[in-house]
This record gives sequence, structure tokens and C-alpha cells, in this order.
Amino acid sequence: MANYRNVLVAVDFSDDSKAVVRKAQEISARNQATLNLLHVVEYTSSMYAGDIPLPEDLNLDKDLAEQAAVKLKALAEEMQISEAAQYVEIGIPKREIVRLAEERGADLIVVGSHGRHGLQLLLGSTANGVLHQAKCDVLAVRVGH
Amino acid sequence: MANYRNVLVAVDFSDDSKAVVRKAQEISARNQATLNLLHVVEYTSSMYAGDIPLPEDLNLDKDLAEQAAVKLKALAEEMQISEAAQYVEIGIPKREIVRLAEERGADLIVVGSHGRHGLQLLLGSTANGVLHQAKCDVLAVRVGH
Repeated sequence: MANYRNVLVAVDFSDDSKAVVRKAQEISARNQATLNLLHVVEYTSSMYAGDIPLPEDLNLDKDLAEQAAVKLKALAEEMQISEAAQYVEIGIPKREIVRLAEERGADLIVVGSHGRHGLQLLLGSTANGVLHQAKCDVLAVRVGH
Repeated sequence: MANYRNVLVAVDFSDDSKAVVRKAQEISARNQATLNLLHVVEYTSSMYAGDIPLPEDLNLDKDLAEQAAVKLKALAEEMQISEAAQYVEIGIPKREIVRLAEERGADLIVVGSHGRHGLQLLLGSTANGVLHQAKCDVLAVRVGH
């Protein structure tokens, strides 16, 4: 039986993250697969393009990435998967997830998915973007019932 | 460990169908879950709305559904999962998949997924529609490399 050997789970630190990570952890354990945790810090520069002068040494993305690494480590310890590889990337979540999956040779990406209706459908979602762009299988874990 | 108990796999009889069914079969076996096979005959009436008069007793959808049931049974036997429940529905694939999943209490839907780029992204896909509308987890199996 073909098994998944290398699982990448994307964590957004929402209340639902633990349920998503738990599923990825179970699949990894059952398949004796490598587990990789990833948090993507969404690129923020365009949010601050107003008239207010910002300090030249402002490096919000990097600060956020450092904070995210600490949070990811704490989450992994709390969920007793501190041996899992941990990654923090800065960029567009769907792109970074797909990119890291290829780079690490993942054969399954696990992401959380909220239902979408009406206008939301047009706006797309991370799960949707990953589904279309990934070169491997994608498990969308339904969260936020 | 939480397991999947009831898996629904959507089969479109493309060359890639067997790979998708195989994955669903493996997950079901490993979880001792119920396996359900579904083929959706896409509603065809609008395709024949031209000027050519059609025989009044034409019932293409029903004929196609009967043929599909035979093909589904043959596929299940070939893949040695003839004990799996088999369903053929007529309609819009993503809607019928989501509807049957709810009706049968499925906790995982397995569908095939092709990568999409450019204009294709706007047209959506069955995998995409299922992802947004399903109330359970969705595994998109990457096919057609």
C-alpha cells in the first residue's frame, strides 16, 4: 500500500489550528511519515503604504516572523511534536506552502478549510490556492463549523 | 486517534480514476472505514437545446446513468472493492458529491484534482467546489502529472 512519507501542515495560529495539526500528526504517525510544520507571515508592506512616515529601520515582517517562530515552537511542544521540522516563511500563504512542499519533497499538504459561500467564493482562499497549485495531494480539514 | 469512519470517493471514469479510488481504498482499509463509490452523470439537457428536433422519448441522462452503474460495478470488481456501496447520481458533480456525503454521513470525501492555471482558475473545478461546500474533510488526490 502506498503511504504518505512526508507531510507538510500549514498552521495559521487560529483557534482551529490545533485540530488541523492533530490530523496531520495522526496521518504522519500512522504512515511513519516525516512531519513538517509551516507558518506563513503574510507580506505586510502594502498595508502601510499611507502618508504616515514609518521609521526607516521598521522591519515588521521580520519581527512577525521571529514571533511566529516562537509561537510555532510552543505549539509543537504543547502538541508533543517538537521533533517535527518547523518553518516560518514570509509571503503569500498559498505560494509559500506550495513552494516549501516542493522544496521538502512533501507528498501530502494538510490545510484548514472554512466553507465559503457567495462573494467569498470569488475571493478564493488559501486552501483553494494550494489545491490548484500543489504538485502533491492536499487534505483540506474542515474547521470552524 | 480519531479516524475516518466513512469515506466517499468520486469517480469520473477518466484514466486517473483508479489512482484516486486506490487512495480512498487504502485510507478506508487503514481506518476500517466504510467505502462509498459515486459517479455523477453531468446533467446534459442544455447541451441539446439546438434546433434539431429530438425524439420525445429521449432520456439521455437516464441511459447514461444506467451505463455508468455498469461501469462502476466493473471498476469495483476489478479493484476488488465490490463490497463498497455504489451510487450513480445525475446532476452537477460538486453538488451531488456534497449532497451524497451528507446523506451517507461521510467524514472524508476523496476527489481527483488536476492543477489549474490562468483562465482555468476562473472556471473552477469539481475539487474546488467540493472543497468549499463540503461539511467534512476533503482529500484532493493529484492526478494527471
